[in-house]
Amino acid sequence: MTGTEPGTRPILVRALFGEATSRAPFWFMRQAGRYLPEYRAIRATAPDFVAFCLDPEKACEVTLQPLRRFGMDAAILFADILLVPHALGAGVAFKAGEGPVLEPVRDAAAVARLEPALAGAAERLSAVYETVSRVRAALDPAQALIGFAGSPWTVATYMVEGGGGHDFMRVRGLALREPEVFQRLVDILVEATIAYLCRQAEAGANALQLFDTWSGVLPAAGFERWVVEPTSRIVAALRARHPGIPLIGFPRGAGTNLRRYAEATGVDAVGLDAGVAPAWAARELPRRTCLQGNLDPLLIAMGGEAMDAATREILHSWRERAFVFNLGHGITPDVPVENVERLSALLRAWRREEAR
Amino acid sequence: MTGTEPGTRPILVRALFGEATSRAPFWFMRQAGRYLPEYRAIRATAPDFVAFCLDPEKACEVTLQPLRRFGMDAAILFADILLVPHALGAGVAFKAGEGPVLEPVRDAAAVARLEPALAGAAERLSAVYETVSRVRAALDPAQALIGFAGSPWTVATYMVEGGGGHDFMRVRGLALREPEVFQRLVDILVEATIAYLCRQAEAGANALQLFDTWSGVLPAAGFERWVVEPTSRIVAALRARHPGIPLIGFPRGAGTNLRRYAEATGVDAVGLDAGVAPAWAARELPRRTCLQGNLDPLLIAMGGEAMDAATREILHSWRERAFVFNLGHGITPDVPVENVERLSALLRAWRREEAR
Repeated sequence: MTGTEPGTRPILVRALFGEATSRAPFWFMRQAGRYLPEYRAIRATAPDFVAFCLDPEKACEVTLQPLRRFGMDAAILFADILLVPHALGAGVAFKAGEGPVLEPVRDAAAVARLEPALAGAAERLSAVYETVSRVRAALDPAQALIGFAGSPWTVATYMVEGGGGHDFMRVRGLALREPEVFQRLVDILVEATIAYLCRQAEAGANALQLFDTWSGVLPAAGFERWVVEPTSRIVAALRARHPGIPLIGFPRGAGTNLRRYAEATGVDAVGLDAGVAPAWAARELPRRTCLQGNLDPLLIAMGGEAMDAATREILHSWRERAFVFNLGHGITPDVPVENVERLSALLRAWRREEAR
Repeated sequence: MTGTEPGTRPILVRALFGEATSRAPFWFMRQAGRYLPEYRAIRATAPDFVAFCLDPEKACEVTLQPLRRFGMDAAILFADILLVPHALGAGVAFKAGEGPVLEPVRDAAAVARLEPALAGAAERLSAVYETVSRVRAALDPAQALIGFAGSPWTVATYMVEGGGGHDFMRVRGLALREPEVFQRLVDILVEATIAYLCRQAEAGANALQLFDTWSGVLPAAGFERWVVEPTSRIVAALRARHPGIPLIGFPRGAGTNLRRYAEATGVDAVGLDAGVAPAWAARELPRRTCLQGNLDPLLIAMGGEAMDAATREILHSWRERAFVFNLGHGITPDVPVENVERLSALLRAWRREEAR
């Protein structure tokens, strides 16, 4: 048996569309990142992070780096979820050691100031689509390229709070006290995100992921209105225009709202954080939904038998399901490269028929 | 109909033991707190927070304050979850604007240094039991007094991290890399917590709550070992010695592990954070489990129709279940007193028979 399987589509795409593939397709969130010396070498040549993301040559190179070492089944576009607010003129800057800083959007006037930029926002990110084209051209046909965007809720948290690392009181307060204003901000982000993802699909992305890093801070009613509803609109628009491109939703921390998310948004696959027991996901999430996840990132940092055992538990729990193996969150910079190699080898060797 | 119902036990206790009471018993997490001017006045006389918690006269007074204004069905002991590590000699200090600071416990030697203090730890907190006795003597027989402790996992996070506000990497790392060392720390906390809660029960507490504020940061396997297992041991010990005292577990952020927690720990009631849809809890949690929660604290800060509507949704969703109304997390200092009064009036007026 070779690394690829019969059929014209990459194994990742087939798994995302519900096929119980004979191998375990895998990629790792933040697989292009600081744990790789070759990433750090390129990053050192690009002092401004936004400019780095918008440099097709460099972004293409770091997107491809992890696949050369580990042979993942998918590359994920090197970019940032704050490129959409950048294109909307929200003044995104990354300060060393501080994380992102944005001009806060906290009232109707600030939301209105974004409107003129909406029509041209996707076009302003043309460098990203150039990166997508280059990566796609460089990949083996059996390997997939995943494009992505932040979810409207998660992107809005950064825009309202004015950065990351806050307690979400401003964004949750705005959503509760001025729901019409916040709805307009979310609607702008829905529209910009649809255009941005469509352009990635047209440039050659084989699958798309919506990162909803902060969906877990919402109460249940807010989760419905600010996560489920906007995500559903994005999924519907993408499906209508690009029916061959599967969509992955990653509502981190969604907890008891996870099944509702899987049932109501229409995503093809649900990304699971490490808090979800693999057996729970196999039992409770809809059969038509592909599972993606969910090894604790601390275990890939630790490596060894503990990492292997937790990986085997996921593979065993999901042996009757369509799934894509991943981590529950991004690889951290302290992860030894040899642990990633060990995990990749374990995953490449797994065969569903032997697990049944 | 009067505020109390037939029977010899407080309505809160009956609800926690599974009775679908005709009224909605209620209390609010952190109901004795800074949103009350009379609390701030007493707090100003006690510069050291640990000493404040261990002053029976002052602690009794602030425990009773909210009941005088709002007529909750339960008082909750004024204390802190870090009193147990304080009694174990972990050097707890509260610094203004910084939160708690502890001497970090990060290796076998540091855990071993706690051992000599274990036997006398509960006795070192005798001031707390004096507070319990005073509050119980001052309360109406129809009102309950809730004692509490932090869960071993949550208390351990503060002990290993050396305070709050961290990313839990140290405590999660210790639990993964040196599980025997971390197990010994948890075992010490289980034993100290059982002794501490038994003494509260003997002093007159009518119900006990285990606060597991940080249960949501654990991956599923860790949740089983560090939350479910220690909680089960505490519940079994308490039930054997004090079968008439119901136990509430509050595994904040437990998400998809919530049903497992309710089924496996043996708690009589499960506290729910605001992320849990009330209808989900009514449908998915075991029938024998009393539900407690879960209004978004931002809504009591906001007040008005939005607060009323969300409150009615909870009451409606739980009309066929035993439940205790509460918030999904503690009252924040900015909550207007009139909002607490408005919510309390709504709750006092509710009748189950009219809701069916």
